[in-house]
Amino acid sequence: MQKSTARGVLVQKYGGSSIATSEMMLQVADRIRDCRNDFPKIAVAVSAMGKTTDQLVSLANQVSDQPRGREMDLLLASGEQIAVSLLGLALQAKGVKAISLTAAQCGIQTDGVFNRAKVRSIDTRRLIRELETGHVVIVTGFQGITNIDEVTTLGRGGGDITGAALAAALEADVCEICTDVDGVFSADPSVVQNARLLKNLSYEEAVELASSGAKVLHPRAAEICMRHNIPIHVRSSSHRQEGTWIRGGTSAMEEAAVVGVSSDHGLIKVTLRSVPDKPGVAARIFRDLADADINVRLIIQNAGAQKQARITFILELEYLEGASDLFEKWRQDNITSDSIIERDVATISIVGSRLSSTPGLAARMFAVLHHHGINIDCISSSEMKISCVIAGNYLKQAVQIVHEEFFNSQKR
Amino acid sequence: MQKSTARGVLVQKYGGSSIATSEMMLQVADRIRDCRNDFPKIAVAVSAMGKTTDQLVSLANQVSDQPRGREMDLLLASGEQIAVSLLGLALQAKGVKAISLTAAQCGIQTDGVFNRAKVRSIDTRRLIRELETGHVVIVTGFQGITNIDEVTTLGRGGGDITGAALAAALEADVCEICTDVDGVFSADPSVVQNARLLKNLSYEEAVELASSGAKVLHPRAAEICMRHNIPIHVRSSSHRQEGTWIRGGTSAMEEAAVVGVSSDHGLIKVTLRSVPDKPGVAARIFRDLADADINVRLIIQNAGAQKQARITFILELEYLEGASDLFEKWRQDNITSDSIIERDVATISIVGSRLSSTPGLAARMFAVLHHHGINIDCISSSEMKISCVIAGNYLKQAVQIVHEEFFNSQKR
Repeated sequence: MQKSTARGVLVQKYGGSSIATSEMMLQVADRIRDCRNDFPKIAVAVSAMGKTTDQLVSLANQVSDQPRGREMDLLLASGEQIAVSLLGLALQAKGVKAISLTAAQCGIQTDGVFNRAKVRSIDTRRLIRELETGHVVIVTGFQGITNIDEVTTLGRGGGDITGAALAAALEADVCEICTDVDGVFSADPSVVQNARLLKNLSYEEAVELASSGAKVLHPRAAEICMRHNIPIHVRSSSHRQEGTWIRGGTSAMEEAAVVGVSSDHGLIKVTLRSVPDKPGVAARIFRDLADADINVRLIIQNAGAQKQARITFILELEYLEGASDLFEKWRQDNITSDSIIERDVATISIVGSRLSSTPGLAARMFAVLHHHGINIDCISSSEMKISCVIAGNYLKQAVQIVHEEFFNSQKR
Repeated sequence: MQKSTARGVLVQKYGGSSIATSEMMLQVADRIRDCRNDFPKIAVAVSAMGKTTDQLVSLANQVSDQPRGREMDLLLASGEQIAVSLLGLALQAKGVKAISLTAAQCGIQTDGVFNRAKVRSIDTRRLIRELETGHVVIVTGFQGITNIDEVTTLGRGGGDITGAALAAALEADVCEICTDVDGVFSADPSVVQNARLLKNLSYEEAVELASSGAKVLHPRAAEICMRHNIPIHVRSSSHRQEGTWIRGGTSAMEEAAVVGVSSDHGLIKVTLRSVPDKPGVAARIFRDLADADINVRLIIQNAGAQKQARITFILELEYLEGASDLFEKWRQDNITSDSIIERDVATISIVGSRLSSTPGLAARMFAVLHHHGINIDCISSSEMKISCVIAGNYLKQAVQIVHEEFFNSQKR
């Protein structure tokens, strides 16, 4: 990212639920006006208002069986364009100098992958010019522009990525993610009644929590801020209390390693059988998936009999159609004998900074699930996360008992 | 305008009422697909769907007392962006190669007057490239982009201007204005039951009819096509029958000169009293109005006593606020003693090719209004149009009796 020399920059991102109505828009404008007392320079990324994106998708489905690609991005981008214009007008009506910019106008360059573009760079010249002339700059979240002026969108949660990319490009003091919850919790509060608000997280913990189902923050946003060492503050847009700070080198808990329980549902599990157990095959499979822009959530490979392996991976349902074309290709290329698809699977994960060096924690997770009769289908673990694949209909109970085990049990 | 060397180009413009629902959008897509049998290259300008623009204006009014300027244009432009994206998706779903372009993407350059920008040029390079690779090109009507990438809108009826400007830049065979009525009528059919569909009009007649209240076509669109000699075809978007052809050198009627009765209501009349009757004063007044982007509908100047004149002009209500600032300035500069403002005035006009050379026609108009007790407040005439300013509450009756006089009377 091209760097600025600006100091004292606040970047805020407001999600669609925080600006769902014109009244909420006016409240957000008040909030931004108040923030000027602390920060001379403020850039704000906003998502589309409330259910706007869903309504646009619904319109698209009314005129096309498979609305996607270039025109779909142009359609969806209008949602953020409406939001930035209205927020700009609201700020101006309150006497705050403000200017609303599209991704094209503020130079957010992406690659050309429609519907799931990645930010490549931000040309900060106009941003800095507007900030230096005293404007609050309102930027369309979730979208970008290619080098041939095509409008792209960044995929679900892309507003967070815009916020983080702006914070990085402007070397912001902080990237505030203003949302409809109070911060990041130790588990989904709608599932676990006594879930705890986490005051501090490390970037790595935030990435792992976010990428395994905590929808508060996009993992890419945490990664971008980590790379540029910009603190993230996830907080409520409806009050001024502090939420969750995400910074380098901090962890929510010094004693216990588990900082949160995250989960994800509505996934599909694909098992490729009789995969030749030789170098390069797995690489080929995952390169094909990447080339088709299919995000793989979890990968589990078991060595099988007679030089044959079994490769399992977890996908979101939306990628099934694209993946199915690959399954057929792999079968023809003798990479697999067949593929087994299971729907409605879920993942439950514990996340923390020293998980792998404390094997007893994984054992406790497996034991409590087993104790309640919940079958663990697959296990995947990393330095900071242990994930179990289970049947979707057990997920809610699993989250409750695993959270109870690590956060309220007397055993700890 | 930069010229293309393309031949066989059809330009269509669809108004918001023609694509108000996704079903209507699909019908328009069918219509465009069918047109490909006759035209290898089709460019389509579309307005925002149905009441979208009104809804966006309403949202803006909810967050600001005076929503206008740059952010308002960015807001309103999203309406056409939604429409072009959906029409592109609908055409693609029907197997038609189509691409949706914003004004920025298809190079519609305007001046920097937000809310009422004027098209300066169209850089046709991308348009022609897309047409030559077999795409139906769908363009956002009503909007443009400045030389510093600011989004502008062209004001009410701006979709027609986009259509005409595209037709001119692409040297189209015809510019079709597809709308929710069958064509241009001799009077507003909702007011005059037996109004006639006009099969042919000259450009000049269309300009005069349009600029005095017939809302079917923007007068600037007719002017642009006149200058580039592109035939306009105003027709219904819901059936395939011919509507009104607007071309050079034709007139609807060879015998009688009156081709239509047009009207406009909700206007204000401003009278400046005691204006010094010396050269340059009127010019100053109207230059000030032009500089403030205030459109004047009619200008009437009467010489008064003692070297003082009285200048009357007719404005749309929306310009009153801006004009009031000028009234005060003129009073301070001794250009007028005071200004009298009358609201709810209306104009009724007869339009035709040889009006001024047939003075009996004006006399018949005045006589029939007088005969029905309708007071004529002011009169303005040009080569092709005679307009009377009357009280707004008499307008409907006035249109009926004047239309009856010229189109159904036995006296003719």
